[in-house]
Amino acid sequence: MTTTAKTTASKPRNSGDIQHWDIDTDVAIIGFGGAGAAAAIEAADAGAKVTIFELASASGGSTALSSAEIYMGGNGGTPVQKACGYHDDTENMVNYLKACFGNQADDNKIRDYCENSLNHYQWLTGLGVPFKMSELKERAIMALTDDCLLFTGNEKAYPFTEHATPVPRGHNLEVEGDNGGPLLMKILTEAVQSRHVEVHYDSRALTLISNDKGEVEGIVVRIDQQEKTVRARKGVILCAGGFCMNEAMVRKYAPTFDRGLIPIGNPGDTGSGILMGMGVGAGTTNMHECFVSLPYYPPASLTFGILINDKAQRFINEDCYHGRVGYNALMAQRNAQRIYFITDVEGYGDYEKMSYLGAQVAGTGDSVVELEQELELPVGSLQHTVSEYNAGASEGKDPLFHKAAAWLRPLTPPYVALDCTLGRGPFYPFFTLGGLDTLASGEVLNPDGDVIPGLYAAGRTTAGIPRTAAGYASGMSVGDVTYFGRRAGISAAQK
Amino acid sequence: MTTTAKTTASKPRNSGDIQHWDIDTDVAIIGFGGAGAAAAIEAADAGAKVTIFELASASGGSTALSSAEIYMGGNGGTPVQKACGYHDDTENMVNYLKACFGNQADDNKIRDYCENSLNHYQWLTGLGVPFKMSELKERAIMALTDDCLLFTGNEKAYPFTEHATPVPRGHNLEVEGDNGGPLLMKILTEAVQSRHVEVHYDSRALTLISNDKGEVEGIVVRIDQQEKTVRARKGVILCAGGFCMNEAMVRKYAPTFDRGLIPIGNPGDTGSGILMGMGVGAGTTNMHECFVSLPYYPPASLTFGILINDKAQRFINEDCYHGRVGYNALMAQRNAQRIYFITDVEGYGDYEKMSYLGAQVAGTGDSVVELEQELELPVGSLQHTVSEYNAGASEGKDPLFHKAAAWLRPLTPPYVALDCTLGRGPFYPFFTLGGLDTLASGEVLNPDGDVIPGLYAAGRTTAGIPRTAAGYASGMSVGDVTYFGRRAGISAAQK
Repeated sequence: MTTTAKTTASKPRNSGDIQHWDIDTDVAIIGFGGAGAAAAIEAADAGAKVTIFELASASGGSTALSSAEIYMGGNGGTPVQKACGYHDDTENMVNYLKACFGNQADDNKIRDYCENSLNHYQWLTGLGVPFKMSELKERAIMALTDDCLLFTGNEKAYPFTEHATPVPRGHNLEVEGDNGGPLLMKILTEAVQSRHVEVHYDSRALTLISNDKGEVEGIVVRIDQQEKTVRARKGVILCAGGFCMNEAMVRKYAPTFDRGLIPIGNPGDTGSGILMGMGVGAGTTNMHECFVSLPYYPPASLTFGILINDKAQRFINEDCYHGRVGYNALMAQRNAQRIYFITDVEGYGDYEKMSYLGAQVAGTGDSVVELEQELELPVGSLQHTVSEYNAGASEGKDPLFHKAAAWLRPLTPPYVALDCTLGRGPFYPFFTLGGLDTLASGEVLNPDGDVIPGLYAAGRTTAGIPRTAAGYASGMSVGDVTYFGRRAGISAAQK
Repeated sequence: MTTTAKTTASKPRNSGDIQHWDIDTDVAIIGFGGAGAAAAIEAADAGAKVTIFELASASGGSTALSSAEIYMGGNGGTPVQKACGYHDDTENMVNYLKACFGNQADDNKIRDYCENSLNHYQWLTGLGVPFKMSELKERAIMALTDDCLLFTGNEKAYPFTEHATPVPRGHNLEVEGDNGGPLLMKILTEAVQSRHVEVHYDSRALTLISNDKGEVEGIVVRIDQQEKTVRARKGVILCAGGFCMNEAMVRKYAPTFDRGLIPIGNPGDTGSGILMGMGVGAGTTNMHECFVSLPYYPPASLTFGILINDKAQRFINEDCYHGRVGYNALMAQRNAQRIYFITDVEGYGDYEKMSYLGAQVAGTGDSVVELEQELELPVGSLQHTVSEYNAGASEGKDPLFHKAAAWLRPLTPPYVALDCTLGRGPFYPFFTLGGLDTLASGEVLNPDGDVIPGLYAAGRTTAGIPRTAAGYASGMSVGDVTYFGRRAGISAAQK
C-alpha cells in the first residue's frame, strides 16, 4: 500500500499561464475525509460555493478507517461527561494537553480547541452524530459497545496525574462494534450532500495555481484523465491527509519511524497536500513525529505485567496509553535488541482470543530464573526486576515507574514472555503527525510566519493538536481534524 | 546570543523587478566559514569570478570556533594514519558511517565523502594545513597537543565494533592548545585572499533573487545600511551555517533540543540560509536532529564510572563518545527526573581541575547504600546496579551494555555522584544537524527531488554526513563542511 512515486508537483502553476478555467468556485477543498467534510459544511453554511476534489471513489479518508472517538471536554463538561458524573474544567483540559505535548505543543491551537470543545460537541450532535449518555469503564483501545465516554489516553497515568485531574474525554459514537469512523463519515457526508456542495470523486489534485505575488488562486486537478483548471476565488483548503503511505517522505522527514512499522491510513496518505503547500512556500512543523502504538491490550489484564528491554530493565509504567508505551518501546529499541512483555498466566488471560498485538510467546517459565534463562537475559537481571517489582506491588506501590495501584499486584509463577521486538511479530502501527504550519484559523504560514494568501489546510496535512505518540490519546486526531477543518472552512468562506 | 528575530525574508525577490544590478559576479557565496571558504577556493580555481558576503567583520564562522579535527580516512589510510600504523579501507569507513547514522544516513554523500577522503587530505595539506605524523592515544574531547590522529567518535565502542574495524580518523592540526579552528580558517582565508576573491564583510544577505521559472539569479544584500542587488551568473552558494541561535526555529523544527541546552556556534547561526532556500522552494531534511553532548571527560578516568537515571538504571556504555552519551542522557530525561554519573574516588581523579562538564557533586558515600540514600534513589536500586556492574567488571565484562574491557574495573568505596541532570549545572552544548536537502554536488533539491537551478548549499545550512549526535564524531562536521563546500564551489563554477 505504500508508494515512493511522486504523485504531485510541489512547484505551482502560475495563474498568468492559465488560459481557461474549467471549474469556478469559491472554496476548493482537496480531500473528503473528516477535515475536508467539516471544512465543506462550514464553508457552505457561511455562504460560499464549495467544491471538493477527492482522490478516491467515495468520501471517508482515514477518518472512516478510524474508530473515531472524538476527544472533547472542558467547559464544565460535555453533556455525556456530565451525565456520567464528571466535571471538566477548560483549564484542566488545557493543562492536560500541554503536559501531553510539552514544547512540541501549539499552545494557541490547544487553547482554541479546548475553549470551543463544547461547541464542537454541539455542532456534531446538531448534524446528527449520536452519543449515548453512558461510560465504558474497562481499559480498551476502542469501544466495541455503543457506550460513549472512555479514558482514551494517559489521563490516569503518571506523570500526567501530576499535571491535571483525570477526566475521560474520548467520545465514542453510539454504534456497536468498531464502526465509529464509517458512521461519522456517513453523517458528515450526508451533511455535505444536503448543502449541495459539488463533489468530484476520482479526482487527483496535481498542483496549486498561484500568481506572481504568491497568492493561491486555484488548483490543477486530473479528472477522467484530463487536466482541469480550478479557480478558487476565496481559497484552497488542503485536507489531503498525512504521509505515512509515502516511504520516501517518511524516511526523509520521520526516519525514526522508517523501520518497518505498519502505516495505518488510506492509500492517499502520500503527503501530496503537504508537498503542494511546500511548493508555494509553506512552512512545515513537527514533520519528524508520528503516532506509533504497541497495542498490548486488550486483554486489559496484561497491564498487570511488565515491559522490559534486553537488560530486563523496565522503561515505562505499563498503565499508560498504548501509544505512549509503543513510543517508548520503539525508542528503547535504539539500544536494545529485544523487548519483552512479561506476564503471569492470570494476566495472560484471554490474550490469544482478544489481542491485536501479534506478539509470539518467546518463553515460559515455572520460575523467573527459568524464564530469564529461556530469554537469554543477563544472569540475575530479570530476577532482580521481578523481585523488586513484586515487592513494591505487594504494597500497591511502583517506586520506579509509578504505575497506578489499580494495576499493581505481584506476578506469580508460571510466567509468559511475549516478544514485542519490532520485526519479530508484533503490530507497530504508525501514522504521521507533522505537516504544514498553520494558524488555528487554518491559514497556512511560510517559514517567516507570514500567511500565504488563499491557502488553508486542516487534518493530518497539518501539525495539529497531537504532536507525539508519547502524549497521544485516541480521539485527538479525529477531534483535531474535524474541529480545525471547520475553522479552515469558515476562514476561507469569510475571505 | 540567541535570537527569535526574523532576519531574512524567505520569499525571494523576482528578477523581473530588478532595475539595476549593483554587483555582478559568477558565483555568490553567502557566509565565510569553512564551507564558504572551501567553496570560494574551488570555484575560483575553476575559473569563476567569486564574491563572498559575510555577516561578520571577519571570516571564520563556526569552523573557527571549533577544534577543527577533520574526519578523514579510507583509501588505505591517510599519510598520518599510515605513519601511525593504521590501515583504513574505504569500505570500512563507509560501513562505520552507515552504522553511525542508520536510516538517517545519506548513503550517496557517505560514499562520495569516503572515496574522496584521501583527496581531501591532500587538498588541505596542499593549501598548507599542517598535520603531524603522530597519534594522541588518550581518550580526549580534543587534542591539546599538536599531535594529529585520535579516535574522535564511537569507533572502539559497542555496537560500532560489530560493524567496522576501529580506526582513528580525527585529524587535529599541528598546533598546541585548542587552536585548530582558528588556524584552519586562517589558512583557508589566506587561500581565498590569494585568489583575489572579492569579499564583503559586514554584509547581510536579505533574500534570494529568482526568475519566473524558479531559477536563482542572485541575492539582495545589505552593506553599509544600503540594499545592493547581486547578480550571480553561475549560482548562489548558501554557506550560512545552521540555526542553533534561532530559538523559534529550534522550537519549531528540533523541539527535542529546545530544553535549555547551550547553543554552540557563531551568532550568525540563525538559519537564514535555510530560510532563504526554503523561500525558493527548497526541501529540507533531518531538521529535527542536533548534535548534543555531555562532556564528562576529561578526565578519561571518569569513563570507569557509570551513568544512571533516577531508577539507578544504566542506559549506555560509558565508553561511547560524549555526543552519543549526551544524546542518550537527554533522551533518558524524558522519563527520568535525574541523571547521575557515579564514580569512585580514583575515577573522579582530576575532575575538578580538568572537566568542562560543570556538574556538581550530588552526593558521596562510604558505601553504595549511603550514596543511594543520599541521592534518594529507590531502595536497593543502586545497590543492585553497582553490584551487578562490579561482578561483571571484575571479569572484564559488561553483559548489559558491553563497555569495552579497557574501561572496566569494579567501583570501590568511597563513591561520588555528579548531577548530570539538564538544568542543574552540567554543560549540554548543541548545534543543529538539519538543513537544505542537497545532492553531494551541492545542488539544492525541492521536495520532489528536482534540482533548483542556480542554487547550491554546503555546511550546516544543509544536512550532511553527520545526522545525529548518537553517531557523531568530532571532525565529521568540519570534514563535511570543507569537503562539500569544495564540491558546491566546483559545481557552481562549472555551470
